[in-house]
Amino acid sequence: MRIINVENQNSQIYIGENYKNVRQYLPDKPCFLICDSNIHNYYQDFVEQFPHIIIETGEKIKNWTTVESIIEQLLELGADRNSFILGMGGGVVCDIAGFVASVYMRGMEFGFISTSLLSQVDASLGGKNGINIGGLKNMVGVFNPPKFVICDPRLLNTLPAREVRSGFGEIIKHALIQDEKLFTYLEGNREDLLNLEADLMKDLIYRAVRIKADVVQTDPLEKGERKKLNFGHTFGHAIENNSPLTHGEAVSIGMMLACLLSNEMGKLTSQEIIRIQDLLNAYQLPVATGVKNETIIEYLSKDKKKENNRINFIMLEKIGKAIIQAIPVESLNTCVPTLKQKANLLPQKH
Amino acid sequence: MRIINVENQNSQIYIGENYKNVRQYLPDKPCFLICDSNIHNYYQDFVEQFPHIIIETGEKIKNWTTVESIIEQLLELGADRNSFILGMGGGVVCDIAGFVASVYMRGMEFGFISTSLLSQVDASLGGKNGINIGGLKNMVGVFNPPKFVICDPRLLNTLPAREVRSGFGEIIKHALIQDEKLFTYLEGNREDLLNLEADLMKDLIYRAVRIKADVVQTDPLEKGERKKLNFGHTFGHAIENNSPLTHGEAVSIGMMLACLLSNEMGKLTSQEIIRIQDLLNAYQLPVATGVKNETIIEYLSKDKKKENNRINFIMLEKIGKAIIQAIPVESLNTCVPTLKQKANLLPQKH
Repeated sequence: MRIINVENQNSQIYIGENYKNVRQYLPDKPCFLICDSNIHNYYQDFVEQFPHIIIETGEKIKNWTTVESIIEQLLELGADRNSFILGMGGGVVCDIAGFVASVYMRGMEFGFISTSLLSQVDASLGGKNGINIGGLKNMVGVFNPPKFVICDPRLLNTLPAREVRSGFGEIIKHALIQDEKLFTYLEGNREDLLNLEADLMKDLIYRAVRIKADVVQTDPLEKGERKKLNFGHTFGHAIENNSPLTHGEAVSIGMMLACLLSNEMGKLTSQEIIRIQDLLNAYQLPVATGVKNETIIEYLSKDKKKENNRINFIMLEKIGKAIIQAIPVESLNTCVPTLKQKANLLPQKH
Repeated sequence: MRIINVENQNSQIYIGENYKNVRQYLPDKPCFLICDSNIHNYYQDFVEQFPHIIIETGEKIKNWTTVESIIEQLLELGADRNSFILGMGGGVVCDIAGFVASVYMRGMEFGFISTSLLSQVDASLGGKNGINIGGLKNMVGVFNPPKFVICDPRLLNTLPAREVRSGFGEIIKHALIQDEKLFTYLEGNREDLLNLEADLMKDLIYRAVRIKADVVQTDPLEKGERKKLNFGHTFGHAIENNSPLTHGEAVSIGMMLACLLSNEMGKLTSQEIIRIQDLLNAYQLPVATGVKNETIIEYLSKDKKKENNRINFIMLEKIGKAIIQAIPVESLNTCVPTLKQKANLLPQKH
């Protein structure tokens, strides 16, 4: 096991720890487990050791109705502000469980057993949580870090292949914005990694978490540096919200659009774009979308990252180095169609 | 004007400032005003200087439906996380506006123009916000202080008399838990104060805010000392939720029950109880309730302040000195009927 301590967040990430050892990280208070029905099916004996609340699966349940239902169940189970919430699941469960724990009786402590690759390297870390409002992602939430996150690669064996790919999408993102060596590592070890070879995965997860933890430590409230973690997410959320794609798939397309935008602005070279597209394709991630231009533009104009009618876009200077650049909302009308067209012209291997 | 700086909260309280001067405290960002329909009626010209959102009045609207409606309107008005929320109103508006600002796009800055006596001396200060769930008060919320609060006594002239009395209830609470001299001041100046004599009111509000600010500074997250501010509120919330009384009226009864409980436990003398009852009556506040024993007990058993099946009750050692004592939930079955009966035996002047 390797431990990453996210310093100014008082948050510990245990990578490679067996999830069954969670009790040694729980404080001496009543603990209530929140998971989804999939996790309950796979890990019933473990889940039922705790008073537990089971929610449905999928992004569509990340809403207030689910929050209210959890709160009512917590009340029935007798949870109070001195209780502890243990979220066990992927990004959706961690987002909801973290939000509930942050607002129930004005806040209680919580930790996660992170079960998907995507949440192990991204969603469960860094203290962002939230729910969707009227189809807009994470429109309501707070910044509030978990006490701990257990990232146990054993749990990935029950993950559908598509969810595994979704996780690789976020890892590629971490590499693109911050770590060219990780990018090369992903290029060189694609087969073993796609087969979830245990030691390599543990190493990969550690490297990806390290990148995120460093960024979050520098800028917990996303005033500057942390915005870089949103690379691919501005376009990505617009696509995810208007298609049946997973988060990682949508972000993959979003990253490619952001790469093409960077190239338009004279930053990333065309050779680098081909290299990035090759890697995304190698991990069976898409790079183009059929979502309509107007739909994307309308969604972007409500983006959380908008400030004074400009959207902060994350672009790449080169592989391993992201920069933040504000783009006026009006310019999207010409830029979105151009980028989408260019992405469609790329060789599609997926 | 007098200024109180709540240190570790980065929050400034301006007492006696003219609310029309608010612009000098607003940061250089788009500002959106949230108020209720009463405030809009009385101060229409002022409100309509800002993009504004108007909500209905009363505790019953402190729910998720109102929050969601405000969020949708903020989106339509183009508010983003770089915008500023200005809540103008009493406790309900401040609680909702503060909660919305804390969770909209994971948090934006906010400040208050506090318009009721109760919110000037209590509700708008200290960073607690929240909404009710299934009739349980403030079951969902966060700790998050406003940038500033303007307490302008001029605004009290449009306040219904019953709301003024409700505010005096909280001021008496501040005196009881922390400041015997303030208690004597309230006894000695009851007539002028009930007539809202401007200079005396400014002084009174300052003294009451000073008490709250000192407590909040010591213990922002209510781990210990701050719990004393809940004096009268444990019983008070149970009564408020099950009767047509205002918050201050319910808290007045709650304080009397807590005083009688303190007396039962051998703390407050019977002479002091008479003195307290005289003061509450002088400010036309009730001290007894017809709410059923079982209703109160059921509500208390879900109290937020409950920890490990014990409720933290705030009691008085003497006038001006509060203590915290945990009471097992089971003991409520005998103690609630006794206290209610004793309160009913007190001479009722209201």
